[in-house]
Amino acid sequence: MTHPKHRPATDAAFAVDERNRAKRLHERAKYDRAAVHAVLDASPLCHVAYVVDGQPYVTPTLHWRVGDRVYWHGSSASRFLKKAQGAPVCLTVSLLDGYVLARSAFHHSVNYRSAMVFGTAQLVEGREASEAALRHMMESLYPGRWDALRPVTDQELKATRVLYLDIEAASMKDRDGPPSDEPEDLTHPVWAGVIPVRASLGAAEPDAHTPESLAVPEGLAALIASGKLRP
Amino acid sequence: MTHPKHRPATDAAFAVDERNRAKRLHERAKYDRAAVHAVLDASPLCHVAYVVDGQPYVTPTLHWRVGDRVYWHGSSASRFLKKAQGAPVCLTVSLLDGYVLARSAFHHSVNYRSAMVFGTAQLVEGREASEAALRHMMESLYPGRWDALRPVTDQELKATRVLYLDIEAASMKDRDGPPSDEPEDLTHPVWAGVIPVRASLGAAEPDAHTPESLAVPEGLAALIASGKLRP
Repeated sequence: MTHPKHRPATDAAFAVDERNRAKRLHERAKYDRAAVHAVLDASPLCHVAYVVDGQPYVTPTLHWRVGDRVYWHGSSASRFLKKAQGAPVCLTVSLLDGYVLARSAFHHSVNYRSAMVFGTAQLVEGREASEAALRHMMESLYPGRWDALRPVTDQELKATRVLYLDIEAASMKDRDGPPSDEPEDLTHPVWAGVIPVRASLGAAEPDAHTPESLAVPEGLAALIASGKLRP
Repeated sequence: MTHPKHRPATDAAFAVDERNRAKRLHERAKYDRAAVHAVLDASPLCHVAYVVDGQPYVTPTLHWRVGDRVYWHGSSASRFLKKAQGAPVCLTVSLLDGYVLARSAFHHSVNYRSAMVFGTAQLVEGREASEAALRHMMESLYPGRWDALRPVTDQELKATRVLYLDIEAASMKDRDGPPSDEPEDLTHPVWAGVIPVRASLGAAEPDAHTPESLAVPEGLAALIASGKLRP
């Protein structure tokens, strides 16, 4: 499989090749790093697609990013682990931001942000790399928590399954704003507009073994108050 | 590619074969129809994975279900459309329900629901089938809305890209509840518990062409008030 380059990478934009080039004229695909990174960082949940014996699989898992390297937790992808090294994967992060209700069925849509990245899956191996990956994962969601935890053991590090890819190609798409009705439909007497979809964090629920004297850590409280899913 | 059946389908459960059989002992995979259907129906957003020239792709799109047939909107999968007929796909719906914070890094987790279904992609073709599919899509999110809209045109139906699969194999996984710490860690002095993640609909935002006299339809108001993403 070859991926002829149509537009080379720059500091600001990912290379555009057969994998990430938008195929439809009206798709507003963006290739710049900042736009792709922003979507990857907005949600902890991604979907990773891989191929085993010609069959596609897509599994949800948690991801985190360090520069142009995207890591994901391998537990839900164990079917893939043995064949992961060197395999092509596609990792997508999507946020649903709203329902767009138009005056015609055809113009109904959703507001969303989505980033799709392509690369070659690699398994994080070795004690040091595994511990660094786990620490990154923790800090990407709960800054400062790692050092408050019971230290990680060798056995746990051996059982840690973290994969990563270095982004070889990527694109980001989004839609925002009100419905795009045909001009002649604007007087059709039906309610039209947007219903926002919001993902947010609720009040922290301590488990039965957390003493009342142990308050929710400051960073965690700030995350919950932020209205975002990750810091 | 063959998919040897290990457990035949029943009215209540999907067949279990190489595609959906859980690979790890502690995975709590469920194969019963009601559990799979419930997750498919809980969110309008799915991720569809397919293979083009050995490369996996996963795109987010909207889906809806009629029995064991799952439809999805094809606009974001146009790269795939030409090759869709008869191609194997995996369609996954995931809902992130909470962050699970344990006393060790290793036992951190998330609460979630996820359904993965496998089948063969088919394109909805013909005026009647396309109109029925669009009506299903609309009614699955906004019951009663179809008849209030400006009628669909032949041109719109020709441009409609809806795909579907009949579920050949499927599984559902979930996690719920507090962290599962090691017994000896329970006295480690760090806050542990769950931070719920909630997706909800916000107040409807009418567009600039909706007269003030046109109230939000009753069904839509009920959907927003339900706390769910779809009826």
